[in-house]
Amino acid sequence: MIDTQNAHCPPVVALLTDFGLRDGFVGVMKGVILSRAPAAKIIDISHDVQPFDVPSAAFLLDWSFPYLPRGSVITVVIDPGVGTLRDILVLDAFERRFVFPDNGVISRVWSQECQERRLVCAKNRSLWLDMVSSTFHGRDIFSPLAAHLANGGELSEIGPTVESPSILLPPCVTEVDESQMIGEIEYIDRFGNLVTTIRRETLLDWIEGVRPSVQDVIIRLGSIELRGIAPSYGAVAEGEPVAVFDGYDRLEIAVNQERADRILDVRIGDRVSVAVS
Amino acid sequence: MIDTQNAHCPPVVALLTDFGLRDGFVGVMKGVILSRAPAAKIIDISHDVQPFDVPSAAFLLDWSFPYLPRGSVITVVIDPGVGTLRDILVLDAFERRFVFPDNGVISRVWSQECQERRLVCAKNRSLWLDMVSSTFHGRDIFSPLAAHLANGGELSEIGPTVESPSILLPPCVTEVDESQMIGEIEYIDRFGNLVTTIRRETLLDWIEGVRPSVQDVIIRLGSIELRGIAPSYGAVAEGEPVAVFDGYDRLEIAVNQERADRILDVRIGDRVSVAVS
Amino acid sequence: MIDTQNAHCPPVVALLTDFGLRDGFVGVMKGVILSRAPAAKIIDISHDVQPFDVPSAAFLLDWSFPYLPRGSVITVVIDPGVGTLRDILVLDAFERRFVFPDNGVISRVWSQECQERRLVCAKNRSLWLDMVSSTFHGRDIFSPLAAHLANGGELSEIGPTVESPSILLPPCVTEVDESQMIGEIEYIDRFGNLVTTIRRETLLDWIEGVRPSVQDVIIRLGSIELRGIAPSYGAVAEGEPVAVFDGYDRLEIAVNQERADRILDVRIGDRVSVAVS
Repeated sequence: MIDTQNAHCPPVVALLTDFGLRDGFVGVMKGVILSRAPAAKIIDISHDVQPFDVPSAAFLLDWSFPYLPRGSVITVVIDPGVGTLRDILVLDAFERRFVFPDNGVISRVWSQECQERRLVCAKNRSLWLDMVSSTFHGRDIFSPLAAHLANGGELSEIGPTVESPSILLPPCVTEVDESQMIGEIEYIDRFGNLVTTIRRETLLDWIEGVRPSVQDVIIRLGSIELRGIAPSYGAVAEGEPVAVFDGYDRLEIAVNQERADRILDVRIGDRVSVAVS
Repeated sequence: MIDTQNAHCPPVVALLTDFGLRDGFVGVMKGVILSRAPAAKIIDISHDVQPFDVPSAAFLLDWSFPYLPRGSVITVVIDPGVGTLRDILVLDAFERRFVFPDNGVISRVWSQECQERRLVCAKNRSLWLDMVSSTFHGRDIFSPLAAHLANGGELSEIGPTVESPSILLPPCVTEVDESQMIGEIEYIDRFGNLVTTIRRETLLDWIEGVRPSVQDVIIRLGSIELRGIAPSYGAVAEGEPVAVFDGYDRLEIAVNQERADRILDVRIGDRVSVAVS
Repeated sequence: MIDTQNAHCPPVVALLTDFGLRDGFVGVMKGVILSRAPAAKIIDISHDVQPFDVPSAAFLLDWSFPYLPRGSVITVVIDPGVGTLRDILVLDAFERRFVFPDNGVISRVWSQECQERRLVCAKNRSLWLDMVSSTFHGRDIFSPLAAHLANGGELSEIGPTVESPSILLPPCVTEVDESQMIGEIEYIDRFGNLVTTIRRETLLDWIEGVRPSVQDVIIRLGSIELRGIAPSYGAVAEGEPVAVFDGYDRLEIAVNQERADRILDVRIGDRVSVAVS
């Protein structure tokens, strides 16, 4: 957690969706939230997640939430199952509240150690809009729940406690020993850069234990093999692949000035390894 | 109207433009609004309406406004006539205020029944910025008017009452009898899905009157003929056309995983019919 | 400056970056700002500046700031040098505060006459986040400084006074006499229109001095020669070049319905002249 202060008033509602900004869906969600919680301050994490890309949303959520004020209501609508029987859950953890569909998007947040947390299932329809469509629960259910929480409403009013959410993602680092650490591609940014599950800090700790320098590790992804972690993209020629630590504080594989995802033909979930030789 | 509450403080200003987000125009409008109405909360409906696409803006405005808080000031700058003699109007209706160019963008809102409404023409230049350019009335006129209204200012100060705005769109449903209902394509979303003027509710009422099931109606658009309204896009194979009820609560024609506008070669205004056989 | 009012409470923080809206960076900056300055109102100037395009950011900053409320904290993160030794500066001028990397992005603002201004270099690490990465100073340094200023914090707490920032852009008008005025292409908008450094007002004053009408001046750009400044893009046929005054109140060269940057093969910095014949 970062050093946040005075975060209790007014409440922040943060939105993460795959709705895009063109068609009015996000504006309508904000309208519903402010209709019911006029004091809320609404900010956007992203609305440009690829439609239905639950793993990318899980990544962005996990990375961003510690930087949102304590008390924030974080509302996630990446919801391929809208209108089906999937549940809508609300989690109170890390001094924030998360409203999300039970499709695995909370996987990364849930896997972090947390002293105290509560999870409920949204069943109390009296908190929703009077008319609930089968296609736009972001407006009809998620937004009213966010407003309820922003107004200081209790989790217990939302619905009954449940034990645990659906977890659909593997752990960040699937294997680590003295010879190598194995992770995977977790997110591809707008420039086609490949963000891995391997955290800067975790990797530096491991390197310190087994080898003196980040110059000497071997990073492997598909048929690509890179030596060392560079200080910046520009450390290699244009069109050449390079490993760096990025703005997400992760190990990232990029191609200088080009789209690494296309040039290296990589997909989310592809395996990445870091080895001592 | 949805069940909004406590919407009077602080005032919400909602923006709908074709300015895009890249070139700073929206930020400057917000700067002017907050310079004059520091307590306003500003939200965006969309800024990615195609340049000068008045019918799409009319659709988004009509659909979204009931979800904005009562008391909202809804500011619409889709304004191909900027700098010409077209008027700028302000409408008080449905417990909201609308600031818009008199180019037909208010057509759908105006066509809805409203118990009490007032319409004035912006003539009082003392409310505008001191310097008014000929190219950016969004900044120089619309934003100061929005601030005036957000501050609780009266309509009567803005200018003289006028009878009615320019109405440029045909009614949503142009013909309905026992054998068929006729509407048209009103909006094309970012995925190329074709949103019709036919409201879910209106269509279900009509079906109930003439036929037992949504499975059996025939939807016709150009040379395409579809049987039944599907529960989701995925009810048909990839690349196949399908009719659904969408997030706008409208009848929509889509092509699963593809752009229906291109594949079916459809334009806004094209005729759609729903028939009993 | 425009006629702003009551702008002191609550503080506005305006953001200008090249982060895009897809990958969560802007949301995280807003989270940090609101964590530390819960009363701040945050607005966006643009986040779609081309990566590392300092001259375009300098243009947008210079144009937009007079329309932001007095007291605004304007935070600019176009920062190719992140993680290197470039300084982060804070300028108090024109009754606003500017937080920016010392890479020339402040050039246009600095070149404007200002009665009183102060400039400091961000050295006091106690105002930053506890953990400062080498890749995301927008989050770790710029945002906490913006929060400090939004909370009414002093410049003197941020760091020592410095004399002047790096100035990397030439003056707007490099030459003017009775026969011609010379400027350059300063910004290319999302439609490919070419915004010049030549201000509408400056040009009209000059024309008034030397020639009776805007119809008769000759505008030259590369091998293109245009006679007169048109009232709108549509004054010429589709695909034809045209000179107009635009929403930035600048002389602009466009191609009606097409991308002028591609058709005329023009780049930022290319020379433009206006001559009496």
